[in-house]
Amino acid sequence: MTDTPTSAQHLRIDGERLWRSLMDLARIGATPKGGVCRLALTDLDRQARDLVTQWARELGCTVRVDAIGNIFMRRAGAREDLPPVMTGSHIDTQPTGGKFDGNYGVLAGIEVLRTLQQHGIVTQAPLEVVVWTNEEGSRFVPVMMGSGVYAGAFTLEHALSARDRDGVTVSQALSAIGYDGPEPVGGQPVGAYFEAHIEQGPVLEARDRVIGAVQGALGQRWFDVEIVGQEAHAGPTPMELRRDALLAASELVQAVNAIALEHAPHARGTVGCLQVFPDSRNVIPGKATLTVDLRAADDATLTRMAQSLHERARALAGDGRLAVTLKEVVYFPPQPFDARLVQAVRDGAQALGMEPLDIVSGAGHDAVYLARLAPTAMIFVPCKDGISHNEIEDARPEHLAAGCNVLLHAMLQAANGHALAAEKAHAA
Amino acid sequence: MTDTPTSAQHLRIDGERLWRSLMDLARIGATPKGGVCRLALTDLDRQARDLVTQWARELGCTVRVDAIGNIFMRRAGAREDLPPVMTGSHIDTQPTGGKFDGNYGVLAGIEVLRTLQQHGIVTQAPLEVVVWTNEEGSRFVPVMMGSGVYAGAFTLEHALSARDRDGVTVSQALSAIGYDGPEPVGGQPVGAYFEAHIEQGPVLEARDRVIGAVQGALGQRWFDVEIVGQEAHAGPTPMELRRDALLAASELVQAVNAIALEHAPHARGTVGCLQVFPDSRNVIPGKATLTVDLRAADDATLTRMAQSLHERARALAGDGRLAVTLKEVVYFPPQPFDARLVQAVRDGAQALGMEPLDIVSGAGHDAVYLARLAPTAMIFVPCKDGISHNEIEDARPEHLAAGCNVLLHAMLQAANGHALAAEKAHAA
Repeated sequence: MTDTPTSAQHLRIDGERLWRSLMDLARIGATPKGGVCRLALTDLDRQARDLVTQWARELGCTVRVDAIGNIFMRRAGAREDLPPVMTGSHIDTQPTGGKFDGNYGVLAGIEVLRTLQQHGIVTQAPLEVVVWTNEEGSRFVPVMMGSGVYAGAFTLEHALSARDRDGVTVSQALSAIGYDGPEPVGGQPVGAYFEAHIEQGPVLEARDRVIGAVQGALGQRWFDVEIVGQEAHAGPTPMELRRDALLAASELVQAVNAIALEHAPHARGTVGCLQVFPDSRNVIPGKATLTVDLRAADDATLTRMAQSLHERARALAGDGRLAVTLKEVVYFPPQPFDARLVQAVRDGAQALGMEPLDIVSGAGHDAVYLARLAPTAMIFVPCKDGISHNEIEDARPEHLAAGCNVLLHAMLQAANGHALAAEKAHAA
Repeated sequence: MTDTPTSAQHLRIDGERLWRSLMDLARIGATPKGGVCRLALTDLDRQARDLVTQWARELGCTVRVDAIGNIFMRRAGAREDLPPVMTGSHIDTQPTGGKFDGNYGVLAGIEVLRTLQQHGIVTQAPLEVVVWTNEEGSRFVPVMMGSGVYAGAFTLEHALSARDRDGVTVSQALSAIGYDGPEPVGGQPVGAYFEAHIEQGPVLEARDRVIGAVQGALGQRWFDVEIVGQEAHAGPTPMELRRDALLAASELVQAVNAIALEHAPHARGTVGCLQVFPDSRNVIPGKATLTVDLRAADDATLTRMAQSLHERARALAGDGRLAVTLKEVVYFPPQPFDARLVQAVRDGAQALGMEPLDIVSGAGHDAVYLARLAPTAMIFVPCKDGISHNEIEDARPEHLAAGCNVLLHAMLQAANGHALAAEKAHAA
């Protein structure tokens, strides 16, 4: 063990090297508008996997691939008997995705390994950087597929048999790109899991903070709603004789917003889809369909929100003029992260002179599945205007570097079993 | 003149003959679901025109066709120097139209002529039954094309150059079916115009009345609205940082409804179309487009309603988080009908033992254009559940017969220059 508390405290990653790696990886699947289109298990995904694993091998890492295509790039520790401290994310993108979503988490992990290699530092526990297969779910569902199988959220067989629009299975696609690995999926102890990610929201930017210490992920309940009234001529039908499905839908849109506001600050309520039929300018809509996405930090709140939604839907149908059906289609439970690791993220930020912001993840991430298995935390950094899943997704090099430094120190703390805060006290 | 007040008072049309004609005409373009698809200026329209004009010729009528394809079937009066008393409607249908919309008005006119012919009655003024070209506007816009040119609402050249989706002009289509007539469009005095029509709304049925004495047509103002906010992830974006275009659109849907209710009973406010973008379940809509259709019986009310709409749209955009644009795309002024002729309709109903209901037309009709030229009135009869522009459009034979009897007596009164009420007084 060449690492000492004092040397580790002053250790910094190379922000320019991290940025160059992000830009190099972004060339694979680059779009004319500056984004990336690199769908899961395509040949572009293979090229990206090949490049990242080449970088890992250059650092002396061993590279293992499991049966769902997850890649584990391992840097040996002083004590190989300890479970590894992991970090990772994904390198598949949305069809009009950006350069940072997912890619940052993987390359921040690579940059941590490069920094340790450069300084000849060996951690107690081994370190692993993981590429999880098909996080985005744009080509194959379920989303967060690799980490989902790894955490036992669904079976390997279920994932391998998923088909894209052309009928190609995950199994066929993995085989075609040579990433149908020999390793079993999961079943090994994980000492800790960290994931660095752009926030994909506007909170850090709005609060002018660089590091988000993510306390956990919101639970989600998704609904499909159909409202049936009576299609009728807009002119000859008096207001009091109408059965206007869109008017009712608009009340539900308002209700979803109100329900979320009643459970501030972490609750969310969104109607993302709404269609009206027949969608003709002078016809009172006879039918409207909409989606409802409710999110909350704890299950009790999420349940209360769903109850409120059901009550509002029943009230809309109350006078018998409309038929309202509400069907729940997705449930993700809220997932708190590990208090000790979240504190390690806060400590890492403060040791680097930054005041972290406690934040929740509103979106799903591979870390949310990993948290079912192992102590887990995430590090968020700002993205421009909170925009992601978009070719104009952007982030500042100094923010990405700061997040990577926090990742470095949080991983060192977890892998070496002693706190950076303690090192600070020692050094002071 | 063989007609006498006393004989006219007891005159009745033949309801079965009227129904048979409706069913005969409905065979041309009949759909499997019991409706009719007979788009303007198609060969099916030609077949229907040929059938109706054949019926008119069998009654000894002269048939004239003008340059926009309107057909005038004239039964001579005792005094050919008097301007004709007209009735009519259209025989083109919506793509999934019914048997009665428009067709009833034309065939009720034919049935009036048949009744007079059967009883050897000659009116003072000549009578004309008119088929107006392309009322529905399904194939060619503008709608109410034949009556619109006739009334000078737009030019013949404008109408003739309109194209369908295949690029065929009205001029070409008229020529192809042989209905590009030699007569100039309009320019002749019209003594009175009546139009019998199914209500296309639920009011008569709800009030249990058979005859609607239509006081006039609502004015209309149509708007296109676009609301631009910011597309964002439903999860990571807190409620207070959102710029949700659909949430704003839902407020506008509610506002349109409220504005109409504030101007009861005749005002209408409808949002018929609404689209959200990107229309993805877990993305806050960044854009919403919608249409607004405002209607009122008088222009002052219609103007106030439009002002309220503009105010609500400005309020939505007020805090700068959303851009709201409101564009007026259609304006039809309110069109009151002729008080004397409306009274003739009421008189006709009462003479036949029915209590008429004063009603407004919320929809456009050829009569609305005719009212710009000549004293005009309409007779509404109920249609099942207020449904039209639909293959399930339905009406009861006895209601259709009753409306036709009212048309008969209103036309006799107008053509003979003495009131049925006076005849009643004379007979009593």
